[in-house]
Amino acid sequence: MAEERKISMAVIRRLPRYYRYLGELLEKGVNKISSRELSERMNVTASQIRQDLNNFGGFGQQGYGYNVDYLHEEIAKILGLDKNYKMIIVGVGNLGHAIANYSSFEKRGFKLVGLFDVNPRLIGMSVRGFEVQDIDKMESFVKENSIEIAILTMPKTRVRQTAEDLANWGIKGIWNFSAVDLALPETVQVENVHLSHSLMTLAYKINDEEEEME
Amino acid sequence: MAEERKISMAVIRRLPRYYRYLGELLEKGVNKISSRELSERMNVTASQIRQDLNNFGGFGQQGYGYNVDYLHEEIAKILGLDKNYKMIIVGVGNLGHAIANYSSFEKRGFKLVGLFDVNPRLIGMSVRGFEVQDIDKMESFVKENSIEIAILTMPKTRVRQTAEDLANWGIKGIWNFSAVDLALPETVQVENVHLSHSLMTLAYKINDEEEEME
Repeated sequence: MAEERKISMAVIRRLPRYYRYLGELLEKGVNKISSRELSERMNVTASQIRQDLNNFGGFGQQGYGYNVDYLHEEIAKILGLDKNYKMIIVGVGNLGHAIANYSSFEKRGFKLVGLFDVNPRLIGMSVRGFEVQDIDKMESFVKENSIEIAILTMPKTRVRQTAEDLANWGIKGIWNFSAVDLALPETVQVENVHLSHSLMTLAYKINDEEEEME
Repeated sequence: MAEERKISMAVIRRLPRYYRYLGELLEKGVNKISSRELSERMNVTASQIRQDLNNFGGFGQQGYGYNVDYLHEEIAKILGLDKNYKMIIVGVGNLGHAIANYSSFEKRGFKLVGLFDVNPRLIGMSVRGFEVQDIDKMESFVKENSIEIAILTMPKTRVRQTAEDLANWGIKGIWNFSAVDLALPETVQVENVHLSHSLMTLAYKINDEEEEME
């Protein structure tokens, strides 16, 4: 799949939304959709949709539209959702708890298998059927269970060291919820969720709109 | 500020990260930085930084670099962080709880003033000094307190109706954590946090990296 190399992350970041919409269509029994219809539903231009999907060979037939099931499956393959991933959560505060309870992740192949914390009051507690383990046991757990993804929902101060340890123990991806940018070897992929950035963007939109109305 | 109209959301979305870095520099007592230094720290090209900041008139002086304090303040103004926003959280499950406890939001002018839920077991409970209120009381609360931002951390099924109600009651921005796209009047700005999209993007990166190494 050498031709996929050049696809921009901007396109990749739109794929989960296509995937979600197509999944909703399938649930409703819709098997065929034109780029115009998909465009109206998703509030994206039809030409944007065609361009995005052409990056992966198109999938559409002129005058027929898209086969929803096929397109859904192909996007799943591109995103790697045809595989399973074993995940752990590091930091079982409210956010760690919230993420542990997202049952929809599991349906897409993201399987939570362990939770870790340093707090003695949390260790031993049960969250969604998992016992919260002492972070001291994380190294052997990650290695023995070939954990692929670590979700970091822990305080900022400990994130860098933990991420480096996890990288050394063979983790492949880190989903980072702290406001710290991680510098890790290329073998480890990082996806950041900066909630404060999102909130600042909302502030911008609110102000921008107010200026427009003045 | 008519010239700001054309700034792409891609640029806007990078500003919070500049803002955060510049804030960290200020805390360390750094008052001046070259675009090259800023670039190395942020892992963004120096030309990207210059281009981004030129959208807002530059701020840099040839051969001198950026005045960190000034740039930090100007970005704050662009993002609307020189104002205060009153926020409520709708849905006080784990995620709502987690967000209520982000004290860093308040430092940037995002002031939590109320929490609402439908669950009788949660109503009356205290979270960060706020009593969780019955959602039936939300309309009068929003109107009387001129609430600007509503954070929706509630189940998917109720999100659309709640968002429409909030729009009618005069809210300016919705921070939406559910996997539902909202169609609202133009007077209401929506910022979505789709956690599942972020996780799918991480899966893509992991697979992409593996293919590259093969």
